[in-house]
Amino acid sequence: MPKVEERGKGRKGKAEEKLSNLGKEVIEDISQIQPPRLKIPSRSTSNIIYDEANRYFVLGPRYGVRSAASMGQVKKFAQTMCMADFCRELTTSGKFATLREMYYTAEGWETGPFRDQGESDVILEDMEAMFGLKRESLGLMPEEDGAAVYGQLVVKEEDAVIDATKAGRGGYTIPPTIDDVEFVKCKAKRIIAIETMGMYHRFVQEGAWKTFDALIVGLKGQAARATRRFLKRAHDELGLPVYLFCDGDPFGFHIAMVIISGSAKLAYINHELAVPDAQFIGVTASDIVDHKLPTDKLRELDIARLKQIQKDPRYNSEFWQSEIKKMLELGKKAEQQAFSKYGLSYVVEEYLPSKLGLKQ
Amino acid sequence: MPKVEERGKGRKGKAEEKLSNLGKEVIEDISQIQPPRLKIPSRSTSNIIYDEANRYFVLGPRYGVRSAASMGQVKKFAQTMCMADFCRELTTSGKFATLREMYYTAEGWETGPFRDQGESDVILEDMEAMFGLKRESLGLMPEEDGAAVYGQLVVKEEDAVIDATKAGRGGYTIPPTIDDVEFVKCKAKRIIAIETMGMYHRFVQEGAWKTFDALIVGLKGQAARATRRFLKRAHDELGLPVYLFCDGDPFGFHIAMVIISGSAKLAYINHELAVPDAQFIGVTASDIVDHKLPTDKLRELDIARLKQIQKDPRYNSEFWQSEIKKMLELGKKAEQQAFSKYGLSYVVEEYLPSKLGLKQ
Repeated sequence: MPKVEERGKGRKGKAEEKLSNLGKEVIEDISQIQPPRLKIPSRSTSNIIYDEANRYFVLGPRYGVRSAASMGQVKKFAQTMCMADFCRELTTSGKFATLREMYYTAEGWETGPFRDQGESDVILEDMEAMFGLKRESLGLMPEEDGAAVYGQLVVKEEDAVIDATKAGRGGYTIPPTIDDVEFVKCKAKRIIAIETMGMYHRFVQEGAWKTFDALIVGLKGQAARATRRFLKRAHDELGLPVYLFCDGDPFGFHIAMVIISGSAKLAYINHELAVPDAQFIGVTASDIVDHKLPTDKLRELDIARLKQIQKDPRYNSEFWQSEIKKMLELGKKAEQQAFSKYGLSYVVEEYLPSKLGLKQ
Repeated sequence: MPKVEERGKGRKGKAEEKLSNLGKEVIEDISQIQPPRLKIPSRSTSNIIYDEANRYFVLGPRYGVRSAASMGQVKKFAQTMCMADFCRELTTSGKFATLREMYYTAEGWETGPFRDQGESDVILEDMEAMFGLKRESLGLMPEEDGAAVYGQLVVKEEDAVIDATKAGRGGYTIPPTIDDVEFVKCKAKRIIAIETMGMYHRFVQEGAWKTFDALIVGLKGQAARATRRFLKRAHDELGLPVYLFCDGDPFGFHIAMVIISGSAKLAYINHELAVPDAQFIGVTASDIVDHKLPTDKLRELDIARLKQIQKDPRYNSEFWQSEIKKMLELGKKAEQQAFSKYGLSYVVEEYLPSKLGLKQ
């Protein structure tokens, strides 16, 4: 496993290099009496492409120019310089700030570069796309903590060594600064990521982490950036297969798919977040039939959403196409907790082994 | 500090006693050829009273009768018996289930007692009010995990001993089953509970837990039941004063006040959750003026809400009345992060010491 020092240096090093090059290029332009200009990859819908080989959304080749010599572009050019300066301060001092703190910090500058946080957020996204680096690498972190992790994983954060079987039932919380975390030891053989915290606690309570040699990850609904980065790192660096257990409805599918193939909105950074090999293990329409689960009727919104994802390139596999079709035919959806109909332990003792192929 | 065994037995013992007595009374009625009946404290608005002495909402003396001999009441009577039976199973086995699991488990029973989860939830609230016990004591837990805790506290959950300075930056997560957690050791002298996780991470990063001998609690917005219970236990059992640091707007006030004096909706259980001595340390309207903070204009909804809480008995103190009035006059609100105007460390190095009276 790569040591945190190397990883840390890698992250910091890369960010410092990109920031420093940006500065050099601007200075060079100026010293050659040319107006400095930046090339920013376009994030508009028409430049977001599904990459069949990598199995996630990426940005296409189009980009925009931001020149200091254009009245229409100079404001954004200057804002980018302010933002880059703040990021250099953060990477140099080793501190992290939230996007909101970034915005309010700028309120204290004489230049007063941003009218509202919307403006500073857009500039940051430009910079992520320009550098091909996540904001976290630049010292800017999301507010939101990541998922809960329970199981045989030992990690190191700065000086603290954390055993994810000894952090309490609530588990080890993936911090927004997950790239600075070192994987020290891992005995688990797979990851089971779960949509709801209720089901996460069921899995912990029933000892599923032990029975299945698994890290149990409680997603808390839609996965945070830190969670997606954790899953990708655990998959790539520890070689753990990732299984996704969500509600059997379009939103559950979506939660899984954002982990698998990323979102269109974050196309510029999916290469650091997507886990294309992650596998959706349910709840599927077939499960609803096979296990005679309690269901709810699909609402109109559900039906519209299902018809929409039928045409989404990320769902263009035999498995997804057949399950979406079956759910539309059934006209029903089911929650993870529906397995409780057969008792609290059923989901762990019966359903999961059959899904993981551990049962005849 | 009371040992967990005693606490555990206390909780379990109380619940088992209440459940057992309920059964005995029903059997006694039947054996005397009387229709069994239950007395359920009324949770209607007219029976919710602000208790000036205790400084939180409680239920008044009114109650309703639920008789097995009334056509209008027998269904709810039977539902209560089913729910009590399920709770007895949980307390006997030492397991926990979520409300959703409870509902779906009932789907598997021949009696099919509940039409939807709304029905089972109401019966559970009846039982909490009838017994004067939280649902958690009966083995039913909320889905939601509690806050993040960072600082010099060591707790024990079953066999795991957890040091809240060694659980990672994300902190120790308060589990929904917080009453089963034992406080083993605490060197902290106070609790600082913080509305947003962004500010929680700021406090952890700046070492505020060390500087202020404090447990830093990241509330994640509106405090979960587990968080409120944790704060109450830490205050009562460890003698720690509790300080609340929220946004300077009506919602921030509300988040603080629910911790301080409980909500009207949970009047039947506030005696286990409210921390009337907890102190709101800001952001106040005075802070906005004194620190010249960046602000947003109060929206109409904010103004309406402020006028509403002016008349709320929980806000009937000189401090709150003056701050609400001042905010209305200002017509402005401010977020916690607004202090970043003076640099990332300002909130910890300047604002907090003055608020805690640690600075001249």
